[in-house]
Amino acid sequence: MTPTDAKRPLQLNDNGQLRHFLSLDGLPRELLTEILDTADSFLEVGARAVKKVPLLRGKTVCNVFFENSTRTRTTFELAAKRLSADVITLNVSTSSTSKGETLTDTLRNLEAMAADMFVVRHADSGAAHFIAEHVCPDVAVINGGDGRHAHPTQGMLDMLTIRRHKGDFEKLSVAIVGDILHSRVARSNMLALKTLGCPDIRVIGPKTLLPVGLEQYGVSVYNDMSEGLRDVDVVIMLRLQRERMQGGRLPSEGEFYRLYGLTTQRMALAKPDAIVMHPGPINRGVEIESAVADSDQSVILNQVTYGIAIRMAVLAMTMSGQNAQRQLENEFAAEEQN
Amino acid sequence: MTPTDAKRPLQLNDNGQLRHFLSLDGLPRELLTEILDTADSFLEVGARAVKKVPLLRGKTVCNVFFENSTRTRTTFELAAKRLSADVITLNVSTSSTSKGETLTDTLRNLEAMAADMFVVRHADSGAAHFIAEHVCPDVAVINGGDGRHAHPTQGMLDMLTIRRHKGDFEKLSVAIVGDILHSRVARSNMLALKTLGCPDIRVIGPKTLLPVGLEQYGVSVYNDMSEGLRDVDVVIMLRLQRERMQGGRLPSEGEFYRLYGLTTQRMALAKPDAIVMHPGPINRGVEIESAVADSDQSVILNQVTYGIAIRMAVLAMTMSGQNAQRQLENEFAAEEQN
Amino acid sequence: MTPTDAKRPLQLNDNGQLRHFLSLDGLPRELLTEILDTADSFLEVGARAVKKVPLLRGKTVCNVFFENSTRTRTTFELAAKRLSADVITLNVSTSSTSKGETLTDTLRNLEAMAADMFVVRHADSGAAHFIAEHVCPDVAVINGGDGRHAHPTQGMLDMLTIRRHKGDFEKLSVAIVGDILHSRVARSNMLALKTLGCPDIRVIGPKTLLPVGLEQYGVSVYNDMSEGLRDVDVVIMLRLQRERMQGGRLPSEGEFYRLYGLTTQRMALAKPDAIVMHPGPINRGVEIESAVADSDQSVILNQVTYGIAIRMAVLAMTMSGQNAQRQLENEFAAEEQN
Repeated sequence: MTPTDAKRPLQLNDNGQLRHFLSLDGLPRELLTEILDTADSFLEVGARAVKKVPLLRGKTVCNVFFENSTRTRTTFELAAKRLSADVITLNVSTSSTSKGETLTDTLRNLEAMAADMFVVRHADSGAAHFIAEHVCPDVAVINGGDGRHAHPTQGMLDMLTIRRHKGDFEKLSVAIVGDILHSRVARSNMLALKTLGCPDIRVIGPKTLLPVGLEQYGVSVYNDMSEGLRDVDVVIMLRLQRERMQGGRLPSEGEFYRLYGLTTQRMALAKPDAIVMHPGPINRGVEIESAVADSDQSVILNQVTYGIAIRMAVLAMTMSGQNAQRQLENEFAAEEQN
Repeated sequence: MTPTDAKRPLQLNDNGQLRHFLSLDGLPRELLTEILDTADSFLEVGARAVKKVPLLRGKTVCNVFFENSTRTRTTFELAAKRLSADVITLNVSTSSTSKGETLTDTLRNLEAMAADMFVVRHADSGAAHFIAEHVCPDVAVINGGDGRHAHPTQGMLDMLTIRRHKGDFEKLSVAIVGDILHSRVARSNMLALKTLGCPDIRVIGPKTLLPVGLEQYGVSVYNDMSEGLRDVDVVIMLRLQRERMQGGRLPSEGEFYRLYGLTTQRMALAKPDAIVMHPGPINRGVEIESAVADSDQSVILNQVTYGIAIRMAVLAMTMSGQNAQRQLENEFAAEEQN
Repeated sequence: MTPTDAKRPLQLNDNGQLRHFLSLDGLPRELLTEILDTADSFLEVGARAVKKVPLLRGKTVCNVFFENSTRTRTTFELAAKRLSADVITLNVSTSSTSKGETLTDTLRNLEAMAADMFVVRHADSGAAHFIAEHVCPDVAVINGGDGRHAHPTQGMLDMLTIRRHKGDFEKLSVAIVGDILHSRVARSNMLALKTLGCPDIRVIGPKTLLPVGLEQYGVSVYNDMSEGLRDVDVVIMLRLQRERMQGGRLPSEGEFYRLYGLTTQRMALAKPDAIVMHPGPINRGVEIESAVADSDQSVILNQVTYGIAIRMAVLAMTMSGQNAQRQLENEFAAEEQN
């Protein structure tokens, strides 16, 4: 360990490079921009596809899924293969934890099996952070979504989408609409937009689906959809996360759509060249009208392609940050001995 | 889109090359022969194994399985890996369609994830055709079996088996025996044999397991096994598809075997050097006597090896046809602009 | 077949090279040492990871799992990928055997699909042996654990661990502790230690968990833990295999730990530099005290890394032995013809 170790944020190495990717909290603007630039470099001309590159040849990415998510698993698997890495996927709930092994033992075993990177999906907030801090600090840990806390690769793919389609964040109005309370995406997006200098971040939803403490993100809160959408450049719709909702008064689907569904009529309140985003899978007629989802303003399918590029960027950068850290520590150890 | 587009058959590009592989309907003899020649080129000397070639390096094949089929999934996975492609397998019934996403949205998402080819297995007739026509025309779609409709790669591997072991189709008598009604293989085989010029195609089975309209394939129908087998060069046994049978009067296994089981005694009615084929998995003692399945005349295991080569041929050719089409359309667009 | 065929042990080719890896029974010391040397060559400096090498490029390893074992499946999958092989995993219980196909037919089909190696995991003793002898003698068959019989790659990774940490087997005292009766690991370990010349092999456990006939392995049997551990160099703890225990009088977990749990206090009876091993997953507080599992004397996680290297060695050596045999047989056939 080097002397600066105590002060270093968990996600960064002593050079300030990314070595884990757990949350957008505390990541500086330059680093977010570097992620976006790296992802851009993986997109082919026309941006319909991602290149295959040999950056992680000989490395092993281990998908450790404590909760099922076909979409996230598939995108990370594709991203790792595009980087020429080997990929192992483990559905941990059905694995040796059922033989009485602790989570920590399971992960240390995976580390010993020569996994260089972990993509972790877990229902509990902070699980990926715990693993990076206490279990396997020398393996690059990527948060593939943890509870309501964060889904930072989704946040960054949204930023890539905005930058590619609307340009400079400092000139944009962005509205995030729907079930903010249960959305890990919303939180990641607000953090990223603020860091990247977006001056007008709006959050739109019913009071029952808005968390307390939204002020810390520097956002404006709207309960009225029409008011909130006025003249925005970007509309980010969220999924109704019924599977995450527990108790309380929940809106019916029809009620929600009537008040917050993104219809053609409402979309007309935004700027004429505004774009529509959605993390998918979309519920047609629940959050969004089919005509809007399929319109020229919709960039929902582009987001999927950009998602592969962002995951590639994060895998490549954290691997590189871990390697650099190991070299720094070796050099420091060699100096100590002299 | 180029001007010839309206007249072009769905499976072919403007040059007449294969760009999807959905059914043997309407494919010309030259194209079937090209598939067989290409598959031959992948077989090693001795034909016990298939070569590994870099034809699809950097490409992604996505197995989209709406119904489970370990055998078809495994053979396509192996074929894609032998071509050096990356492979992603999705069991769609357990995936995001359960989150309320439509089939179309699921597939468009997969396309956006940068899949270059889809292998589709679906219980409904025409599903692969629908996807190629309406959902993802620019992705090569391969039919891995749809309902009772078609199983064209199985049909072509049977043709490869016949050509390698018996030679020229124009001199052969071929009998297809058993449950024609529920067999997607039977239909693909009749089409292929007719196109390749086989002059004597016989269909043998009980009336209750024969579909109406067999005349269109130019086949002779036999209800008597001994009569139908006389002097044939090739016997293709089918599986009793109990899982597909619904209602009606079904023969018991014992009854079926007594009337249509391929025994050593019955096999003696065919030509002395006739070959025995079966799509597998075989039901010993239900459709076929063990001694026949394991005899020197049986080429059932060869069919499995050839099946990998045929799937490689179809993957490589459709990918190439899609690329050629893109280039044609770019050239056409460039001309239009001048 | 060559003339020496009748006398040749199943696992070896006519040159005495490994062509299957089914059990440690009858394998000579030189061969075990060659496996250890080969595995050593795959470990990176520092032995924290295994190298990626192109030894099996273009080959296909087929994991055929008749019983589930995430850990064994994952380690073999990683080992095969580190050798640059393609890997196919089949969970056979859910596959075509449910369509009425026999085990033999399933495996012959896999062989025909161009699998070069089978890793077989089966609940019945002798299953891998049966497959190598009767079904697919020309495919390298690796036993990934069969019933109570054998788990030879686990045995060899334990030997690699001992050799790397304690050196020459001829100077060591090794204790194997716990549920010997239900452990396939214990049997493989006793065989390997005896073959490699270990002069003092001790087996420690309650009478109800010791099999009859232990004398054949040349081991000393102890029912008292403290007596058995005195001055040993290596302690191999086993798992309590509750899932394998049937009937009889079983010790409670608390009772077992009180009598045979490896505590810090008991560990002090061994040599000061003794190492602690365990096949994993460990039951903390049932077989072993947490402080011991996490101590500097514990090499439990090193075993996991070495396990990848051993599996790589066995895959590479059996493939090479099969190739050499094919060449020998071709040469012999050519001579016969002259």
